[in-house]
Order: sequence, then C-alpha cells, then structure tokens
Amino acid sequence: MTKPSMAGKHVEDGRYEQEEVQLAGRNRGTLLESLAYPITPTGMHYLLVHFDVPMAEPETWQLAITGLVSTPLTLSLDDLRQRPAVTTAVTLECAGNGRSLLHPRYVTQPWFHEAVSTARWTGIPLAPLLREAGLDDTCAELVFTGRDEGIQGGEVQFYQRSLSVAEAMDDGVLLAYEMNGEPLQPQHGFPLRLVVPGWYGMTSVKWLTKIEAVAEPFQGYQMVSSYRYSKGPDDPGEPVSHIRVRALMVPPGIPDFFSRARRLQPGLVTLQGRAWAGRVGIARVEVSVDGGSTWREAELEAPESPYSWTGWHCAWNAEPGTHTLCVRATDCAGNQQPMEPFWTRQGMGNNMVHRVGVQVE
Amino acid sequence: MTKPSMAGKHVEDGRYEQEEVQLAGRNRGTLLESLAYPITPTGMHYLLVHFDVPMAEPETWQLAITGLVSTPLTLSLDDLRQRPAVTTAVTLECAGNGRSLLHPRYVTQPWFHEAVSTARWTGIPLAPLLREAGLDDTCAELVFTGRDEGIQGGEVQFYQRSLSVAEAMDDGVLLAYEMNGEPLQPQHGFPLRLVVPGWYGMTSVKWLTKIEAVAEPFQGYQMVSSYRYSKGPDDPGEPVSHIRVRALMVPPGIPDFFSRARRLQPGLVTLQGRAWAGRVGIARVEVSVDGGSTWREAELEAPESPYSWTGWHCAWNAEPGTHTLCVRATDCAGNQQPMEPFWTRQGMGNNMVHRVGVQVE
Repeated sequence: MTKPSMAGKHVEDGRYEQEEVQLAGRNRGTLLESLAYPITPTGMHYLLVHFDVPMAEPETWQLAITGLVSTPLTLSLDDLRQRPAVTTAVTLECAGNGRSLLHPRYVTQPWFHEAVSTARWTGIPLAPLLREAGLDDTCAELVFTGRDEGIQGGEVQFYQRSLSVAEAMDDGVLLAYEMNGEPLQPQHGFPLRLVVPGWYGMTSVKWLTKIEAVAEPFQGYQMVSSYRYSKGPDDPGEPVSHIRVRALMVPPGIPDFFSRARRLQPGLVTLQGRAWAGRVGIARVEVSVDGGSTWREAELEAPESPYSWTGWHCAWNAEPGTHTLCVRATDCAGNQQPMEPFWTRQGMGNNMVHRVGVQVE
Repeated sequence: MTKPSMAGKHVEDGRYEQEEVQLAGRNRGTLLESLAYPITPTGMHYLLVHFDVPMAEPETWQLAITGLVSTPLTLSLDDLRQRPAVTTAVTLECAGNGRSLLHPRYVTQPWFHEAVSTARWTGIPLAPLLREAGLDDTCAELVFTGRDEGIQGGEVQFYQRSLSVAEAMDDGVLLAYEMNGEPLQPQHGFPLRLVVPGWYGMTSVKWLTKIEAVAEPFQGYQMVSSYRYSKGPDDPGEPVSHIRVRALMVPPGIPDFFSRARRLQPGLVTLQGRAWAGRVGIARVEVSVDGGSTWREAELEAPESPYSWTGWHCAWNAEPGTHTLCVRATDCAGNQQPMEPFWTRQGMGNNMVHRVGVQVE
C-alpha cells in the first residue's frame, strides 16, 4: 500500500499512476465532439479543481476587497448582482492541456487535448470595483483567494493567484456569478469566480472570497512553484500567463470504445473544430490529411467575442485507407503551432498540432 | 506508436494504460464531496458514454416503437411532452464502479468509487406507451437503441440494451426528457433517454431512438459480451442487472492535490455520505474509524424516492493520529458490503467497503 509518491516525478514509458487516473476522473476534459458547439454545454465544460469543491452558502457568502485600498469593501452576492452586469463568451483552457503528449511526462493531472471549453460568463467588471475601493499608489498586485483549501507541494493553502494592477484593471476581467445564463454550478465556482479572458484557466480563481491589494509580487505556491515554463529542476522558468495558439478538430466518423480510434465511410466529409489564441485573434487555420506533409486552408467563422474561440471547417473527400488528419492554427501575432511537442518540466502550454488517425473503409 | 492493444486484458501492477486515462478524462466520476448533496448538481453527475455524444436535432427527432406490436408508434418530442409526466429521484451507478480496486484489474474504464449520482428525472412512464402500442403475446423482450454509434469488441454497433417485458412494464421505468428540471444535457441523452431505476446505468439507454418488441432474448454485444459477472474467459457469467448495496463517504478534512490523502483537525466531525441498494431499501449503515475492527451505527435520513439513495451521518471525535475510516451498508434483503473485493473478470459490481485514510494532526 505504501509506495513512494510519484508527485513531481517524470515518466517516459507511456503508462500512468493511480493518482493520475484519480485526478483524471475528477478533472474532466470536454468531449472532443463538443467542439461542434460554439458554446460548450455547461456539463461538458472542462474542469480542474485543485482541492475539493467547497459547499457555499450564498446567503452568508461575502467578497472582501482589502489591503492597500482607501475604502475596504465587503460585498454580498446581492450587492454584486445589483451592479451593471456584462455577459461575454470566454474560452478557458488549462495550462497543462497537452501534457500527456510529452516524453518524459510530468506526473500530475494527465491532459491530452481536451482541457478547453467556451462559456458565456455573466458578472460585473472588476475595474470599477477596484476604482471604488481606491488602490493605493504602492499597490503592485491583487491577490485573489478562493475558498478551496488543500495541500500541494507540502504546503497547506487556500487556492490563490495574483495579477498585476494593470492586468487586473483590464476591461475584460469579470467577477462572474452566471455561466451560460444560469447561476454557476458548484464545480465552476458557485457563487462567484474570477474570469480573466485570454489567460490560462488557473488565473480565473473559483469560489472567490477575497481580493487583497499588496505592495510586492505575491509568492504563493500557485505563482512560484507551479504554472512555470521551467526547463529543469533548477530553472524557475517564466510564469505561465496568456493562452498559446491552438486548434482542435472534432474527430470524424465513429470511435472504438477503448482506443478511440476512428472509422469513417468514404466520401465527402466536413472537418470542423475550433481555434483560439488567448487575447490574440486567429489569422489562419490549416488542415492536413497526410500527417502534415501538405496543408490546405480552412474557412474561419466569426468568433462570438474577442475572448472566444473561432470556428473552422474544411471539406475533405475521404478515400479508403489510413490517414492522419492534422490541424494547426496561426495567430495574428504570427505564432504557429509546432508539429513537435513544446516540452517544459511541468508540461505547461504544449500546443503541438492535433493529430487524429482515421481509417476510411 | 503501434503497441498491442490492452483491451480486454488484465493488469496487476497498479499502473494504467493511456487508453484508460483517455476514457477517465471523458467518463467523469462525480466528485466524492458532491455526496453532500441529496441531488447531484447536473454538471457533477457521473458519466459513461461508450461512443461519442451525438448532436441531436430536437425538431426532427423521433422515437419509433416497432416490432411485435399491434400499433407501431412514431412519436416526436412534442408528442411525448404532451403526455402526463412524472418526476422521480433516481440513483444511477455504473456497473464498473469499483473496478480499479481489483487485482488483477480488467483494462477498460478505470473507476474507483465515484461512478454514482442521483438526479431528478422527468418524463413519461414507459408502460402506458407499450400498452398503447399493444405488445404481441410472442414478445419476449424490448430492445432499446440509442443514436450513439461506435465499435466495441470489434463490432460496429449502435448502443443497444434489452429488458424483458415484465422489466420494461415496471411502473418506475421512464422515458426522460428532463434532468433536475432542465432539458437533458447532450451528454446525458438529449433529447430523450430511458431511465430504469434500480438497475446499473448501462440499462438507461441515452439518445433513445427506437424501442423494438422482439420474440427472442436480444443477443447484442452489450448484453452478451459485456456487463457479465464472469469469473474467467470461458465463463459467460450471469448478466449484470440490479445495483448492489453500497455506501460512500464524503472524505472529511482537506485533500492533498495529487494523492487525495486527507488531513483533518482534531475534534468533533460529522462523517456523512450516501447509501443505496438498487430497488431494495437500506436497512443499516455502519461506520468504522479503525479500519473495520469495530463498527458503530450511522443515522439514516429518509430517501427522496424508493429509487434514490439514503443519506447517512455519524459523529466522530477525531483524535490525533492516522485513521482508516470505513463505511458499509446492509440492504433490506440482508446483503452487506464485503470488506474484500468482489472480483469478476470485467470488474462488475465490486461493492467492497469504502475506505478513507485520514491524518488527524
């Protein structure tokens, strides 16, 4: 029963630890076929919960805005709901999406491709609230604290992340209390969560209870020890921030239950999917039906918001045989997805090209 | 890249295949902390989808009742919604729940404890509809077909399961179009699914398109090759049917992110959870705080319906040290959960006692 913990270790044999399977059962990916929906149905939205989902009592719940502010605020959910609300479609992605495609692979939540979804979030913009609280000139960052408590890297902690003042004051940042027109579900942060468009999902703190203005960059576990583009154990690496360019495909045809290998009838098929690049628009999506040797351009659909993914589609005349379909996106800043894995120690931001093998009969 | 498939194989080294992790990311368990809710929030309900979630168009969707009937019926969703509806709380559980606690372990969807949830399902009872169609005297079974198509065990198939006439005519059997007061979400069977209370979840066919009355027991893959209490490769085994008695506990304290090991402050804590036994009531729930050496009786709450789980709770004065908490249920037919695994080849119905290790500081 007692075996050495594999937390923080790397493996390369393509097999997985029990703890990883437990995490995969808790932290669900979206189903790739749900990429057919411009807005992911709520129950199909991917989920990453570090600790446990807390039970919240909305009647007694409060948000404190505190620290280096001239007017500390304590707000009930009703206080927040009485302010002018906005609704925005936002694509969120877990920073670890693509980790399980790496060799060696960091042992933790084992994502393949599926940790991305888009929802319509309703709430109040954060900036006016911070202006009302009056940030002190000495304030460098805002620290966001969730009610979810647990242990990671040996440290007992509430889940906490920070943003610089400029990042927190960005127009897109929301305190959201609805998702797809309904109150947040418990696992998505009920009653209130931060939503930071364009950033990987770790930034959008769920079950938000406190926003603290502080003078120094926050040194919490989730800032300093996790979510880093580290190349090795002695390299702190750059912090993970904005979502990198990526496209995914709805796997065509029908799946094998166990392997998810795809089988398809010959003839014309519309390949489709979604592409996104954080706060940068999508310039181009290309599809290959020969494993990346040749590429054709897909047609793009208009995204619902500057923060949501872009639909793409492309006709393919499927001929009998085995094919490796690929899709790659290029963003408006000129970044293109690589064919090879983007390896970092913690498996962050690996946006390599999505490949789908299909057998046409 | 090409390695021999592990489908249908057994492993005993406690490690997992990539395909199992892929399945775990698709087929999510409920979060054990959600056992605190008498009705599982929709987005936290466990999910087992054999193939892909189909996109359904509710306007053109039809249910056919066909085969050995005097009046074949073709019903739109509106036709069904105009009939008198009922709402019932039903606990559903995957037959493979507990599979990953077995040694050796069948390589497939790797459930630990978490493939169980309770929802309020709204729909129309099936029996009156079958009476209206007029089952022929030669009818032995009803075959239920979903729109989800794929490959399993080498066979291309729509997902199909059957019930005997008596089982299908049971008062509790519903054609459900709402879950927790909302239209079904796509992954739970939109627009219509079968709900068969008391049976393991494989019976409650999602994306239901056809009910066919047939004269012989249906020999489809999901009846004959899967969902069997088989003891070995040459033993067909008894078919899996009603849900076996089981109880689970909300893990107390706070978790370690990776291992899910629990840490707790000393003092009085209320242990709580749910117990269920298919169509049989729960007679008794017992809790042990010493790994099963001694047991105390938990208090039971009234279940919402004859088909839903029973809440239980029990006070515990947690003293410093390491403890193995256990919970076991006994049903009204006298069946009690075993301390040891219930091993079958496919890992079906393993209702061994739930153990939760906690460290009290």
